[in-house]
Amino acid sequence: MSEVIEKGKLAKQASYQMGRATTEEKNEALEFISEQLLKDQAFILEENEKDIEYGRGTGLSQAILDRIQLNEERIQGIATSIGQVTDLKDPIGDVLEQMEHANGLQIEKKRVPIGVVGMIYEARPNVTIDAASLTLKTGNSVILRGSSSAKHSNIAIVKSIHEALEKSALPKDAVQLIEDTNRETAKELFTLNDYLDVLIPRGSQGLIDTVVQQATVPVIVTGAGNCHVYVDGSAKKEMAEEIVLNAKLQRPSVCNAIESLLVERNWFQENGKDLIAKLQENHVEIYADEEITDQISGLKQATEEDWGTEYLGLTISVKLVDDVEEAVNHINTYGTQHSEAIVTEDEENKEHFLQNVDATTVYHNASTRFTDGFEFGYGAEIGISTQKLHARGPMGLNALTSSKIFVTGTGQIRN
Amino acid sequence: MSEVIEKGKLAKQASYQMGRATTEEKNEALEFISEQLLKDQAFILEENEKDIEYGRGTGLSQAILDRIQLNEERIQGIATSIGQVTDLKDPIGDVLEQMEHANGLQIEKKRVPIGVVGMIYEARPNVTIDAASLTLKTGNSVILRGSSSAKHSNIAIVKSIHEALEKSALPKDAVQLIEDTNRETAKELFTLNDYLDVLIPRGSQGLIDTVVQQATVPVIVTGAGNCHVYVDGSAKKEMAEEIVLNAKLQRPSVCNAIESLLVERNWFQENGKDLIAKLQENHVEIYADEEITDQISGLKQATEEDWGTEYLGLTISVKLVDDVEEAVNHINTYGTQHSEAIVTEDEENKEHFLQNVDATTVYHNASTRFTDGFEFGYGAEIGISTQKLHARGPMGLNALTSSKIFVTGTGQIRN
Repeated sequence: MSEVIEKGKLAKQASYQMGRATTEEKNEALEFISEQLLKDQAFILEENEKDIEYGRGTGLSQAILDRIQLNEERIQGIATSIGQVTDLKDPIGDVLEQMEHANGLQIEKKRVPIGVVGMIYEARPNVTIDAASLTLKTGNSVILRGSSSAKHSNIAIVKSIHEALEKSALPKDAVQLIEDTNRETAKELFTLNDYLDVLIPRGSQGLIDTVVQQATVPVIVTGAGNCHVYVDGSAKKEMAEEIVLNAKLQRPSVCNAIESLLVERNWFQENGKDLIAKLQENHVEIYADEEITDQISGLKQATEEDWGTEYLGLTISVKLVDDVEEAVNHINTYGTQHSEAIVTEDEENKEHFLQNVDATTVYHNASTRFTDGFEFGYGAEIGISTQKLHARGPMGLNALTSSKIFVTGTGQIRN
Repeated sequence: MSEVIEKGKLAKQASYQMGRATTEEKNEALEFISEQLLKDQAFILEENEKDIEYGRGTGLSQAILDRIQLNEERIQGIATSIGQVTDLKDPIGDVLEQMEHANGLQIEKKRVPIGVVGMIYEARPNVTIDAASLTLKTGNSVILRGSSSAKHSNIAIVKSIHEALEKSALPKDAVQLIEDTNRETAKELFTLNDYLDVLIPRGSQGLIDTVVQQATVPVIVTGAGNCHVYVDGSAKKEMAEEIVLNAKLQRPSVCNAIESLLVERNWFQENGKDLIAKLQENHVEIYADEEITDQISGLKQATEEDWGTEYLGLTISVKLVDDVEEAVNHINTYGTQHSEAIVTEDEENKEHFLQNVDATTVYHNASTRFTDGFEFGYGAEIGISTQKLHARGPMGLNALTSSKIFVTGTGQIRN
């Protein structure tokens, strides 16, 4: 039996016991995990160092090495974040619907765990802990498949989790790490329909595309963000500048940062030069349409490809539009349904934009950077779903739950 | 451009207008469709007759011909069912979550349409109307892909729908029928990620398996039902008999009918012969385990395969178990997570069963036949989801919706 099937079976078997676990049992286990990680810190850092050395040897970029790197401060941060998950309200058992049938049947739809959650992810070993603590809190089993670049770190962390679980009332088998990071084990996970209830990929667009194309198990897509700010004709100059700069600059490498700026033509004639200058002052490389490059020198010419590009860095594309309708059409054509903002003082244009832009989160007069589970008050974030089914936008604990209908009777039969 | 891509584009384009449609506009369009179907009745029946004749020629079974057959009464029934959808509360715009950020941002999660819903189904032309009316009511576009056996009927029905939509405020393009029923058009639909937000297969297990294996678009699985009744040691004799007979006999061909009966050993010693006799009186063919066939003659020997078989007819498998725990393990091994019942007077065994059986709907002292959107008060049913994500159990209008987060500010930026 392959490692994936063997661990899939164990995770499935453990998931029944997980479904029965009380909030107290789950919270106690999380506390044990937090303690054990701190206890095992030296060993984990040692193993992490092996990944870092190996990564240096194989020429990984400094950015990726940064994501793999652990240190005492980061492990303390991880322990703290487990504490935060412990403090969250347990959603399992919540009554979602309730009715009494005319024949007296009591019908209750309640929140239950999903069962077995698969996570496939790249680099960051902290995802190993995040995923484990959030899935355990929601009564699920989890199958973790990290990347080879964090292999030693992940094995060390899961060893620590297992030691903690053995002291707890939860089954150790609820957390499974696929240690073989060969491409084949990822493929096996994509089609593990007998044991896996959902697979959540976290990582590059390439990984996500592969999962969408190849998975036969249900998937939650946490997709890319080609996000826009549209500055409408009636936008206040200073507000527009602040929002555009914040959405582009506050953290350019993340999915809710903007990649593209749409500006109403007349507003641009009056205020465009200042806005462009501010972006340039902040070292933002600008790809603009012809109308803009004709007026302002030192900008690069945008091509069709730019409208669909997620730069994830200090680059932005800029395009003039006639009105909010053109802006909406552009966004619905090139966007990735993530986070989209309009800056306007016009009530009608605001409504048109918010209603017609197809995205997880739409903004009026605010930065797109708020699309985040913590900012939205969920107290946790498994990722940001850009699909329409099950969960949309930042995913908190509820996204890791399903529902089940409990019907209790006194012998009722159907006529 | 292929028919599927062309119609996919039209449906997607229309979906934006559908998303803005008011409840009044949607209800008016549904009324127009109902009227038009009655007006076009003669033509629809003529076209339906072509399908029937063709089906007879190709040797379709009487059961399938029955599903294809329309008549005045059935069309009247369809018109009535559209009226029922009109009367349902429109879920679009419902506020699902609401919060104010510390910085004053107003954050609202609202119910919105999914966008473009694909339905792939077999035989029954009434599904064409059901799917269209439910998706229009929820502000979606729909792409319908029926089977070749109902091709003429489906084309006639959609012609009628289009005439009605042209008189309405809704876009005609919101309802698309793929007329080419070649296998290739189904395959194209499976991977129409650019235009299709979800695909719902309705039909045989073979169709559903194919969709799960091949689709890259998100799918809602409306799966098979290998359902069980477990008669516990403390079950009342008469109640157990009534529930077993109802769950098996009231409509044996449907997914929430039982296929398998589990009986606690001691209860069986006392009451088993009578229960078996009642099933036999009702012409139920019985495949039983060796312990039973040793005691009662005239039964067939069950094999391993029987525990996993959905007979969908007057056949049942019967097995003795030690206790509720063995029953739960058996169901979680061989069941299809659909509808599962326990008959017991024991509170502890009831709780163990309801908590640990992994199924969309679990029953205590009631027939499994109640798993149905109408019985559960949804006023409609698109199908019964047997997956864990998005929707589980009978799906009403809410299953055809997604959510979107509306954030309104006064210039807030992230620190």
